[in-house]
Amino acid sequence: MMPRIVSLLTADGGDYVTRTVAELTLTFEGIGGDRHAGFLRTADARTPWHRRGTPIANTRQLSLVSVEECAEIAGLLGLDDVDPALLGANVVVSGLPRLSLLTPASRLLFPSGAAIFITEQNAPCRHPAEKLAGVHGTPRIATDFVNAAIGRRGLVGIVEREGAIAVGDAIKHLASPARVSEPKVTTA
Amino acid sequence: MMPRIVSLLTADGGDYVTRTVAELTLTFEGIGGDRHAGFLRTADARTPWHRRGTPIANTRQLSLVSVEECAEIAGLLGLDDVDPALLGANVVVSGLPRLSLLTPASRLLFPSGAAIFITEQNAPCRHPAEKLAGVHGTPRIATDFVNAAIGRRGLVGIVEREGAIAVGDAIKHLASPARVSEPKVTTA
Repeated sequence: MMPRIVSLLTADGGDYVTRTVAELTLTFEGIGGDRHAGFLRTADARTPWHRRGTPIANTRQLSLVSVEECAEIAGLLGLDDVDPALLGANVVVSGLPRLSLLTPASRLLFPSGAAIFITEQNAPCRHPAEKLAGVHGTPRIATDFVNAAIGRRGLVGIVEREGAIAVGDAIKHLASPARVSEPKVTTA
Repeated sequence: MMPRIVSLLTADGGDYVTRTVAELTLTFEGIGGDRHAGFLRTADARTPWHRRGTPIANTRQLSLVSVEECAEIAGLLGLDDVDPALLGANVVVSGLPRLSLLTPASRLLFPSGAAIFITEQNAPCRHPAEKLAGVHGTPRIATDFVNAAIGRRGLVGIVEREGAIAVGDAIKHLASPARVSEPKVTTA
């Protein structure tokens, strides 16, 4: 199956939860109006090697999940589905097998020319876990979510090239330029 | 051996060749005054998936090499040494085994609090090859350099947190937060 954008979401309210839109404009600071946009962000629980609140480079402008991995998480939690909006996802894709395991420095290219540079895998945290538990009225999800979501929680990235992306867009995945090369010749 | 900064260099002239300095100030745009500084750069031969000249995110603010890998390249080319300045390096380190194979999204932390986010491995290109061949008066280096340098050419990165770095600084390498996690539980 050709990799495609299935849905697009933005967190332009007061919460990290995202809402569905038909199209997003990617700028060098991320998604305009989204709470995660900006060249900088402040250090938080995800970067414990910096004091909380310290300004740092924003390597988490947007987050991506796949319908296939969300379905796996749902299956493991005994749910019919896991709403990407509750995960704070911005871009929901299909047709990219094991999205979460695409290596950092991979690129995703879109028809407009827009491109996303993958900075790293997204680690599950407790906020979506608690949100899912509340929405589904199932308290155990608050603790089970992290184990189910590890390695399936998608990716975060930055905008490498500006442009619009829309639901239905084909996605070209560029892995090779990012592949770490082993030395070709050995030393004596 | 404790990982350390052995030398620091900046390209503040008209060329990509760097000159030695005792200290560098890292800002969110890179090294102030260096030709590679900036939130943006223009697409070039390293990003053939974008039209040359297109503004793109600058994921190559600074480049790092190791004395150990430079010595290996020199040995393979039959040279006494390879000058990191001819490679356009900014940060020369020692004590980080196989620096070039550190995975993207690794962080390097310095005593001032400054931090570098590794975006990707640096691929050998022909400019340093030709420069080395000219300096050493050995034309074959222009063609042999790339094979010798693949997997030993170091890394490029961006400034995650601002601060000064100085020759002699200890380096803390943070690999684990970037490690790609495999799913912990399997689906039926």
